[in-house]
Amino acid sequence: MKVRIKVIGFDADDTLWDNQPHFDAVIAEFTALLRPYCSETAAHEFIHRLQVENLPLYGFGAKSLTLSMTQAACRLSHYQIGAADIERIIRLGRKLLAMPVKLLDSAEDVVRRLKEKYTLILITKGDLLDQKRKLRESGLEKYFHHIEILCDKQVEDYRELFDRLRLQPEEFVMVGNSLKSDIIPVLELNAHAVYIPYPATWQHENVDNYDPNHQNFVQVDKLADLLPILR
Amino acid sequence: MKVRIKVIGFDADDTLWDNQPHFDAVIAEFTALLRPYCSETAAHEFIHRLQVENLPLYGFGAKSLTLSMTQAACRLSHYQIGAADIERIIRLGRKLLAMPVKLLDSAEDVVRRLKEKYTLILITKGDLLDQKRKLRESGLEKYFHHIEILCDKQVEDYRELFDRLRLQPEEFVMVGNSLKSDIIPVLELNAHAVYIPYPATWQHENVDNYDPNHQNFVQVDKLADLLPILR
Repeated sequence: MKVRIKVIGFDADDTLWDNQPHFDAVIAEFTALLRPYCSETAAHEFIHRLQVENLPLYGFGAKSLTLSMTQAACRLSHYQIGAADIERIIRLGRKLLAMPVKLLDSAEDVVRRLKEKYTLILITKGDLLDQKRKLRESGLEKYFHHIEILCDKQVEDYRELFDRLRLQPEEFVMVGNSLKSDIIPVLELNAHAVYIPYPATWQHENVDNYDPNHQNFVQVDKLADLLPILR
Repeated sequence: MKVRIKVIGFDADDTLWDNQPHFDAVIAEFTALLRPYCSETAAHEFIHRLQVENLPLYGFGAKSLTLSMTQAACRLSHYQIGAADIERIIRLGRKLLAMPVKLLDSAEDVVRRLKEKYTLILITKGDLLDQKRKLRESGLEKYFHHIEILCDKQVEDYRELFDRLRLQPEEFVMVGNSLKSDIIPVLELNAHAVYIPYPATWQHENVDNYDPNHQNFVQVDKLADLLPILR
């Protein structure tokens, strides 16, 4: 990796701490709850489609998922579902908003060491209040020079962020688990990207094709692999 | 007002555009929907209490209100409410997320004129995606040097913001309709505050006593009254 890198952007969910497994577990409980009305596969497909359809209005995060699950439950049950089950769905969502933050492998060590040499910024998306809560509970807040919580992570969002923070793309590397949100838009702006795949990435974040031969792209297995690259 | 003011912070909801009347209208529809189960007064009190109770977990905004209304409907109906009504509540929430943004009186003119002499920042709280949408639709985005969407507006939130933006409190004035969120915490930090009361302020934003004789405090009737004070 080029020595002129000065700033490292970290994604948070499923890059520094685990997140998607909690969402997957809640969705599994939701589809089980709907078993009297439809197959778990059908419920799973429906909630995924509805979440994507609701993104422009609801955005990402646990509250959005809860609203989509409630809406899905009404429709999938042909309006037969009872209020006790609706309350169970609300409670599933509350569980997500209170989920413990578990750091991925050596996250704190890696972040602390990289801070000695680079300016670190946290770039995440989703629910403002919940992301701030997770960051506070993670204990990692003190290592970051700047925290940015975006509505979305598309090319324009990164461009606006680079402008605002006066970042030169060639001095910036983004580290994350989503090709769609952390890697491809950043490469498009001629910045650098390190991809750390995470097994449970949400299917909406998947992309069919990308160019792993891009000169600014590196893929590694785990956070600790950043150290030899960026030492 | 002191001539050394350099930066003006504007609250958005019910300061630059109307907001609370839309929330009040949705809550009125919600309490009407629950008429088979309880009085509108009881429903009103319950939803207010639940919203406040849910603030630490849900925060402010339309999605939070929708989740609180859904939860309230289950409990107030003793779990008798049907899924069709639950979907109606979800739709009430969606209406809020798509509500048209109507500027208050001469908001654009005032903001444009003040921008000639001051740095303007927008300081609001609530749902990130929805606040960004409203700002975009307001047409006012271009007048602001910086947009800050906070989880809450307490003394610590302002202190952190002042530090981050390197603002001197004595050079800053906050303009808003909430004594609790826009005025009192700012005065506590020795910055200035202009209070523009709005008839439909949410009761949670009300305070029982404040000191209208604070030397940095001014109350005016409408946005246009800022011009002679800050000209």
